[in-house]
Amino acid sequence: MSKALDLHKALKGKIETTLKASLDSVEDLSLLYSPGVADPSMAIYEDAKTVFDYTWKGNTVVVVSDGTAVLGLGDIGPKAALPVMEGKAALLKRFANVNAVPLVLDTKDPEAIIAICKAIAPGFGGINLEDISAPRCIEIERRLQDELDIPVFHDDQHGTAIVTLAALINALKLVDKNAEDIRVVISGTGAAGSAIIRLLVEYGIQTIIPFDKDGLVSTKTAQSDHQRMVANLCNSTYESETLQTALQGSDVFIGVSAPNILSQAMIQSMNPGAIVFAMANPNPEIPYDDAIAAGAAIVGTGRSDCPNQINNVLVFPGLFKGLLAVRAKNVPTEIKLVCAKAIAASVGADSLSPTHIVPSVFDEGFADTVANAVIAEVTALRAKGMDI
Amino acid sequence: MSKALDLHKALKGKIETTLKASLDSVEDLSLLYSPGVADPSMAIYEDAKTVFDYTWKGNTVVVVSDGTAVLGLGDIGPKAALPVMEGKAALLKRFANVNAVPLVLDTKDPEAIIAICKAIAPGFGGINLEDISAPRCIEIERRLQDELDIPVFHDDQHGTAIVTLAALINALKLVDKNAEDIRVVISGTGAAGSAIIRLLVEYGIQTIIPFDKDGLVSTKTAQSDHQRMVANLCNSTYESETLQTALQGSDVFIGVSAPNILSQAMIQSMNPGAIVFAMANPNPEIPYDDAIAAGAAIVGTGRSDCPNQINNVLVFPGLFKGLLAVRAKNVPTEIKLVCAKAIAASVGADSLSPTHIVPSVFDEGFADTVANAVIAEVTALRAKGMDI
Repeated sequence: MSKALDLHKALKGKIETTLKASLDSVEDLSLLYSPGVADPSMAIYEDAKTVFDYTWKGNTVVVVSDGTAVLGLGDIGPKAALPVMEGKAALLKRFANVNAVPLVLDTKDPEAIIAICKAIAPGFGGINLEDISAPRCIEIERRLQDELDIPVFHDDQHGTAIVTLAALINALKLVDKNAEDIRVVISGTGAAGSAIIRLLVEYGIQTIIPFDKDGLVSTKTAQSDHQRMVANLCNSTYESETLQTALQGSDVFIGVSAPNILSQAMIQSMNPGAIVFAMANPNPEIPYDDAIAAGAAIVGTGRSDCPNQINNVLVFPGLFKGLLAVRAKNVPTEIKLVCAKAIAASVGADSLSPTHIVPSVFDEGFADTVANAVIAEVTALRAKGMDI
Repeated sequence: MSKALDLHKALKGKIETTLKASLDSVEDLSLLYSPGVADPSMAIYEDAKTVFDYTWKGNTVVVVSDGTAVLGLGDIGPKAALPVMEGKAALLKRFANVNAVPLVLDTKDPEAIIAICKAIAPGFGGINLEDISAPRCIEIERRLQDELDIPVFHDDQHGTAIVTLAALINALKLVDKNAEDIRVVISGTGAAGSAIIRLLVEYGIQTIIPFDKDGLVSTKTAQSDHQRMVANLCNSTYESETLQTALQGSDVFIGVSAPNILSQAMIQSMNPGAIVFAMANPNPEIPYDDAIAAGAAIVGTGRSDCPNQINNVLVFPGLFKGLLAVRAKNVPTEIKLVCAKAIAASVGADSLSPTHIVPSVFDEGFADTVANAVIAEVTALRAKGMDI
């Protein structure tokens, strides 16, 4: 038995439900249950938005997964996905004081997943989609966000994209390069990769060369709708690049793909001040030490045992705390960019270094910093007339 | 603003999610989340039943409602139903230490409700259906219990039936009558009424005369499938009875129908030792004091401000605690009967009186008494080879 397995067995659940009020007398029962509960129910019936006033909806997120793309484990099904969703729920509470309910689904049908999420939405302030395989996850999120009036956020896409951009913003400061001038090579164009590309483009990065497991993704080589979407996002019209040739003279490598696909020679062919984010989990595209030894200026991975852990946990707790605080209805790109900038800015100039480009989630007040940036941006966007 | 409304507004949710373990270090994160969480996930993937060992499933119930039959308020929709479901979840935790998640559904389609409950079942140890209108609720429960391997319990049906039978068992002791000999008139044959009839028949009561809002329900008058089912349950072949004539010479009146349909004269026409359970909420079929004044020997209502509150809260916390403890897969009639007998028996001979036929949910160890009876019965049924 591993230590993690022992701990899970001892706990039998990482979260629980608890009462917020005492229920110790007949009067308590009559106020919080029958007949008193009829009053908030009728108030909500008469004015639906008061559901935020009288229930847990306003501070509660549901974490939904079909178990098709769990961690690096793949399609292990809903029961096996439950420990991960409980973990996510625990992190939301621990770092942002947001209630979260893990909900694993015994269906892989996108239409069924959409129907279920729509049906359960009245009871929650937001939906965190999790570990749903690509490209289904993209359509599921889009449809849900179009049709619901609460924020829907697929963390594997946008959490990863936001924290990657945050790390990149800080790394670029250290190597003194501008986002507009750099050449980025990305390996992996699934849920995370395609969202990273989208956010980097929105941030102003102009040259991104995407690769998937079959090689270069470009408008000329694309075979699927997803590949065409990725190629169009990057305006990638290359024909003959390989990962090896693309990296020559590049400034940034971002990997959300597979272990050990990046060699030291490839890093050595990059421009001086090379930034390498090798984020495949649990084993990165190149081990941290090997990338440093090859001369990379800044290296980040997904691992907690190396410097610069580029991890979504820096994003979703503070993001949802902010979104819930202002009862946001969706999560537009502006919010994602503001999150990334707030995470980057939370590493002060005095502590920013090649081994410290992202904050620790344990930093005092960190999630609040993210939440406050989200709140400010939602307020500003609403002032401009955006329906958010 | 009512006191109940104020309290709900101050709480903004009667329950919350909380952590069962500390998440205060990188090591905690690595054990409870990535990468450690992969170990329980893979263990469950390899042996699905270990989901009970490594997650909250084994002690967690989902409370599902479509908001179509909420308290006495009717079809008020999912958002307005949420305070009631939160209340139910709070009671499950308070009285049985069972986690419960309120889930309100924005659909009234029975097939959709069934599909959703089936899809979310992997993450829960039981399903408490709540405030779903009749007769849909009966078919929804039956289908779900047939198709799932966790207990599915529609509280409005069976919780009410169990606590009614418990009260009746004790009332019969006081008036010294046998179940086999009594004549029962029941007003209301919806979710609660039909389940009460079914359980009374299983208990051995032989004469039950059912009425709905249109009058006598009998094999000769039944117009709908539901009425035919009710008439057949009772073997009710009467033709010309009215509520008034049926009550003449009866021993028990059970009302789960509408306020003020029972007159003092009707009670006076009943046999000596008349038992009157007037359980319409919030206003009973006859006020408690009026029934006593008319000469009823024992009167019970649904109200907390009168003696003998016949309330489901005496049932579902202990019942689910017991079912979860033995990982029961369903809730057969034997379990319902055992629950009713355990609730009745928890009022000792020394304290049993016409104003104390049911226990208080606040009685020390009460829910455990019910849970232990359920555990013993499940064990006995399994020993007999029942797949429960």
